[in-house]
Amino acid sequence: MHDNVVNFTYNTPTKVLFGKDAIAGLPAEMAKCGKRVLLVYGGGSIKKTGLYDRVMELLKDFEVYELSGVEPNPRITSVRAGGQICREKNVDMVLAVGGGSVLDCSKIICDAPFYDGDPWDLVIDSSRITKALPLFTVLTLAATGSEYDSAAVITNLETNEKIGVLHPLNFPRVSVLDPTYTLTVSKKQTAAGSADIMSHIFEQYFVDGSCMVTEGLCESVLRSVIKFAPLAYADGNNYTARANLMWASSLACNGICQVGSDVGAWVCHAIEHELSAYYDITHGEGLALLTPVIMRYTLNDKTVKRYAYFAHRVFDLPLQDDLYATAKAGIEALEQFFASIGLPKTLRDVGITQKDKFKVMAEHSCKCFPLHLAFVPLTPEQVCEILEQAY
Amino acid sequence: MHDNVVNFTYNTPTKVLFGKDAIAGLPAEMAKCGKRVLLVYGGGSIKKTGLYDRVMELLKDFEVYELSGVEPNPRITSVRAGGQICREKNVDMVLAVGGGSVLDCSKIICDAPFYDGDPWDLVIDSSRITKALPLFTVLTLAATGSEYDSAAVITNLETNEKIGVLHPLNFPRVSVLDPTYTLTVSKKQTAAGSADIMSHIFEQYFVDGSCMVTEGLCESVLRSVIKFAPLAYADGNNYTARANLMWASSLACNGICQVGSDVGAWVCHAIEHELSAYYDITHGEGLALLTPVIMRYTLNDKTVKRYAYFAHRVFDLPLQDDLYATAKAGIEALEQFFASIGLPKTLRDVGITQKDKFKVMAEHSCKCFPLHLAFVPLTPEQVCEILEQAY
Repeated sequence: MHDNVVNFTYNTPTKVLFGKDAIAGLPAEMAKCGKRVLLVYGGGSIKKTGLYDRVMELLKDFEVYELSGVEPNPRITSVRAGGQICREKNVDMVLAVGGGSVLDCSKIICDAPFYDGDPWDLVIDSSRITKALPLFTVLTLAATGSEYDSAAVITNLETNEKIGVLHPLNFPRVSVLDPTYTLTVSKKQTAAGSADIMSHIFEQYFVDGSCMVTEGLCESVLRSVIKFAPLAYADGNNYTARANLMWASSLACNGICQVGSDVGAWVCHAIEHELSAYYDITHGEGLALLTPVIMRYTLNDKTVKRYAYFAHRVFDLPLQDDLYATAKAGIEALEQFFASIGLPKTLRDVGITQKDKFKVMAEHSCKCFPLHLAFVPLTPEQVCEILEQAY
Repeated sequence: MHDNVVNFTYNTPTKVLFGKDAIAGLPAEMAKCGKRVLLVYGGGSIKKTGLYDRVMELLKDFEVYELSGVEPNPRITSVRAGGQICREKNVDMVLAVGGGSVLDCSKIICDAPFYDGDPWDLVIDSSRITKALPLFTVLTLAATGSEYDSAAVITNLETNEKIGVLHPLNFPRVSVLDPTYTLTVSKKQTAAGSADIMSHIFEQYFVDGSCMVTEGLCESVLRSVIKFAPLAYADGNNYTARANLMWASSLACNGICQVGSDVGAWVCHAIEHELSAYYDITHGEGLALLTPVIMRYTLNDKTVKRYAYFAHRVFDLPLQDDLYATAKAGIEALEQFFASIGLPKTLRDVGITQKDKFKVMAEHSCKCFPLHLAFVPLTPEQVCEILEQAY
């Protein structure tokens, strides 16, 4: 499966400060960019954990403005609010403290001051992003990989759209990855975040051909999550487990797990985006329940070898002569793994008890993602069948 | 072996343009930095292959100055010459076209114009590096990883020193990695380069504890080299083999194969540097002949598990109850692998037929590298024994 290395461009300029109290290095990095900071965070859990106080203490020589209350699926309204503060206060940089949502929101906030129109324009057409404030991040949840990539997903409730945007200017300047900030993450979010990490890998690993080094890295990330997610799930205070998950999350989505490999369509994300958009379910839970269904649905002569090797290399299952049997055993092992950390198995498990929106969701997913270019190309009708099977 | 993740800082700002004719993207990247370029290259093989003409054609809108003749172990005299051109011609950037030596030399050339004294001062004390011209590279040999790291090794024949220097300002701005430029690399250099890549991994992989994701990446790089080096050795024109080796070389030395793991001393490099310094042998060949000797010499209750897992995961050898047997089988497999691509097994094979300098080399290696902090700490007497066993 590694008989070719495709051309690629790769650049991840973010500086990572990883480990216990790595945040101590932040003020020196931020001081290079000025004095005026917009601090962005979410629902206030950082106040409960003491992280907010720690940040304010470190920023005592800076002028700090605040935007709090960024939503789990961050909204364009928050971006607008943040952008406005940056303009009005002539902010030099943005510091995002939180999970993927806070980071995603902050990325577009950084772009907003340099664009004269509505920031939503930047989300729907990234070519309008011409300049960005430097972004610093302190991560509190291992999941999306936003701390080490240039992607952001923003929701517009007025238009019912949730759109992802990629731009090289949107890499954080410096990201602080201190696993201790994730010790308080709930079991549910730990499991969902782990499923998210794994799904990022699957989207890059289940492709026609992959570069051998990259393929091995994908497998290593998957094995690490399979080993450490249950440990973090069982004992939230397990630092080593949290540390491994955090680094896995950061590598899973910044392109290093894709370089040289064929690029597929992000099938599972495409379908899950619809679930989240219509039912506001937890992203990682949606991914976890869809993945085995999609694998079974797409298991055929083209995919069987890849799925069988996944079973063998990631779950250490024996490579049988009957590759289909190996592949199926791998899908089952994955399903059992997800169940072992309390992840849902069906749409009904996450409260989706009606099928009436399947058709419109299926059509919309095929409109927003190029699912005709997937490892196994999918039509809206087929996506509908997948949703049926996930029900 | 992955029961801990140690703190780390990681930053690789280099933009990689990888693949066939990736060089086409270079002028646009360089144009951001100005017009005046110092082109640095080696013995002129790029003129034979046509790469020189291709570069000059791409740079037709730039003002190009040239420094050619950079040596295999690049000398401070070349750095001085390059630095002087940069000053005199008010050069905006440096373009290095070649292997690790040309790239290493160019890194310090970039630093030189901003330092008023002799550039050798920068090599012996990197804190004097305060600013650097942007460096662009076009790689023609997969080996050192210089295209994607901030390290340079410079030789001073006046003082008989060969010193490595690391500085964050010395990352290339953009590196072009086109495997077609390595199709003409000789069998000998292909094998030596492959040994160099593997040794970089060994130095980071044979440590007390390693982060699980990182460990898996190390194993993936090793497996890739073991698969593709013989293919490139057998048929220099095998693009896929060249491409895999090239990407392996770039990842092997930029820190991504070490993050979160314990840091050891670079034992094999420490000893090999002495061989190269005294006998001017090919670096990769020296590494290849020393590695199995060092592994056997250091095989003990502390290292046996790591060496056994290396055998199992990298060479797919069965993990026996007797870990020593597995470890020994792995060392033998490595030795056979090196032999299969024509690498030397003893010092005599590379023309070192006298033992008179062993003692002074052993002492010097322990002075220059912290070998007392190695996976198995080594004294000068022990290094001497290793050289005896390699004889």
